[in-house]
Amino acid sequence: MALIVQKFGGSSVADPECIRRVAGRVLDMKKRGNDVVVIVSAMGDTTDELIELAHRITPEPSDREMDMLMSTGEQVSVALLAMALHAMGADAVSLTGPQAGIRTDSMHRKAKIMAINPRRVMKHIREGHIVIVAGFQGLTPAEDIATLGRGGSDTTAVALAAALKADKCQIFTDVEGVYSADPRVVRDARKLDEIAYDEMLELASLGAKVLMSRSVEFAKKYGVTLEVLSSFTNRPGTIVKEEVKSMEDVIVRGVSADTDQVKITIEGVPDRPGVAARIFRELAGASINIDMIIQNISAQGQTDISFTVPAEDLAKTKKLMKSMSKVIDFREVNVDGDIAKVSVVGVGIRGHSGVAFQMFKALAGKNINLQMISASEIKISVIIRKKYANLAMKTLHRAFNLHRKGPKK
Amino acid sequence: MALIVQKFGGSSVADPECIRRVAGRVLDMKKRGNDVVVIVSAMGDTTDELIELAHRITPEPSDREMDMLMSTGEQVSVALLAMALHAMGADAVSLTGPQAGIRTDSMHRKAKIMAINPRRVMKHIREGHIVIVAGFQGLTPAEDIATLGRGGSDTTAVALAAALKADKCQIFTDVEGVYSADPRVVRDARKLDEIAYDEMLELASLGAKVLMSRSVEFAKKYGVTLEVLSSFTNRPGTIVKEEVKSMEDVIVRGVSADTDQVKITIEGVPDRPGVAARIFRELAGASINIDMIIQNISAQGQTDISFTVPAEDLAKTKKLMKSMSKVIDFREVNVDGDIAKVSVVGVGIRGHSGVAFQMFKALAGKNINLQMISASEIKISVIIRKKYANLAMKTLHRAFNLHRKGPKK
Repeated sequence: MALIVQKFGGSSVADPECIRRVAGRVLDMKKRGNDVVVIVSAMGDTTDELIELAHRITPEPSDREMDMLMSTGEQVSVALLAMALHAMGADAVSLTGPQAGIRTDSMHRKAKIMAINPRRVMKHIREGHIVIVAGFQGLTPAEDIATLGRGGSDTTAVALAAALKADKCQIFTDVEGVYSADPRVVRDARKLDEIAYDEMLELASLGAKVLMSRSVEFAKKYGVTLEVLSSFTNRPGTIVKEEVKSMEDVIVRGVSADTDQVKITIEGVPDRPGVAARIFRELAGASINIDMIIQNISAQGQTDISFTVPAEDLAKTKKLMKSMSKVIDFREVNVDGDIAKVSVVGVGIRGHSGVAFQMFKALAGKNINLQMISASEIKISVIIRKKYANLAMKTLHRAFNLHRKGPKK
Repeated sequence: MALIVQKFGGSSVADPECIRRVAGRVLDMKKRGNDVVVIVSAMGDTTDELIELAHRITPEPSDREMDMLMSTGEQVSVALLAMALHAMGADAVSLTGPQAGIRTDSMHRKAKIMAINPRRVMKHIREGHIVIVAGFQGLTPAEDIATLGRGGSDTTAVALAAALKADKCQIFTDVEGVYSADPRVVRDARKLDEIAYDEMLELASLGAKVLMSRSVEFAKKYGVTLEVLSSFTNRPGTIVKEEVKSMEDVIVRGVSADTDQVKITIEGVPDRPGVAARIFRELAGASINIDMIIQNISAQGQTDISFTVPAEDLAKTKKLMKSMSKVIDFREVNVDGDIAKVSVVGVGIRGHSGVAFQMFKALAGKNINLQMISASEIKISVIIRKKYANLAMKTLHRAFNLHRKGPKK
């Protein structure tokens, strides 16, 4: 007998018919002799509808009251799922995030889980109940309701799985698992049977939107084994777990592209110690997420600094640059939104030489020019023109033999 | 500076426009130097919509899960009202029933308030906030969310007013106050300036649906001064308060009719001690609310017993009568749904003789036959044919001069 945490997203509980289907899946897991804790998101578009309702009241609702409002979405889902399970003869009980002992910090609308007191959930499990917990929410130190921000229900599931020492945390979604590349672009992309936390983190942060980075980080930190799988089929999904030795046999696990970045180039920066530090300290202070950084070779006491930021941070970045131009004497700032970041990821990269060479050669073979390059232990990324993003993905997927089943030896 | 509790029902917060109007009223009260606590119901038809949603899952949802579901309705309202107040520059904070310290028993969907811990509400008041509390809900001893059943938001308001020792509890509704008779029937019915708790209780239980009996009982028990007033106008409403001597100057405060009762007559009951007791013990055991009872004069060792029950309890009553016919040897049960109960209510009845005579004479003048009569200290009721209900109300309203402003001497 195992303890399984299952998480179903909004599209899985979009209407009563969907909710009954989820109930059937949950009950099936219970009938196989497992204890089951279920995390659900708000039904379909509920969250968006609540946000729209708030905006009909005021253009700038307070974060605290938005959380009060939005947390009702998940509360509706958990009650309905409990009812559907009751109708199937199962013992089930629904809990809000606060009732489930989920304690957060005070950052409304993007709260972080600080602690979980699983006492009440454990009690209901011991009583034989399927326990259904509202995702995406918790209680602040001031005993206000807070929501966790994007992907919050995944984080709830992983954190609860950690607190309950669950055997597995299943994340049900509308795809069948984690793929070697976006299957909408790369036709022969394969569903991966397993992937290491670190690989998943690189892919998540690169725009593979299956799992939010935060929940993967949480899973890694607490050693929670994740399974990403489809709520619409019964096929096994992708296991996300601790890296094991055999994983290094695969050099590249996956290829991904991120077209939501913008390249900023500051030209004519004085080549003095501390100037770059100054620039990036300001950017960090404004919570702007810098990704790749390149500093060109200095000429005549001046240098160019390029970096990429998420497109959504562009306005903030430009404003900051403008105010910085008063204290730092650079020549010009260029913004280039016509870029894509294409990456290959795999723990095997670490143990194999020549991966970068193989990557650059494959792209050169398609006449794709590289503007920036960065590499970490398990990832190599390049910045290219946006229009080549799909071609680059397909080319790299084929170059690293990712369409073939089984590890490349 | 006073502490005022204001309660707004579902029709007062039906849409964003209504919510802004309520916010304006609340803020007005605050600006006049008062502390304000606001209780709101769910928006418009939200509760009905949630019930329908549940029924799309299962015909018989559990009461606990229904409470989990339905309590979201008020939570949405309080958040939106807080936002509307913020948009007007006011300090406001919303609380769920459990957050406001409202503790109930465990009877889901018809819970009773057992205690209120006003610590948190007081804290926010001291901080200068308008405090907005979700009506209709509280927390059970098992820390589950419970709803209070019909009229629950009124009860929340009164109970909170009592716990906070508020100076007044204003119940905003879609009528301008309590009337001397139903103004839809009696054209010259007057809005009452004041009414005693006991009079209001008699009128409430007689079908004047302005305030639920339970909230009036609560107000009486804790001496909370109520004001019933319209959320759509700025006119003063009706004050519901402790009886004072001058109230007895008015003999009859109001006239009401209840057409939702059914008369049951058990014919040929053995005229032996204990038989009637047996019948009414069984009825009470089945939670059937008996109202008027008449026992005819005994003839040949047999008697007839008539009583009235709410129409909604008819099926239950018939079933019970059938099973009782096996142990008590009566001849026949007759059901008469074609009745109306018409009553005059007033604390002045107690001090004035001849009120019954005056009532019967007025009805006789219109050829209205009386089937049953009952009288308490402050109320006289008669059962008549249903078709005469409106005529009887108009006749009595005029006979007791209720259309005239000021007390009748």
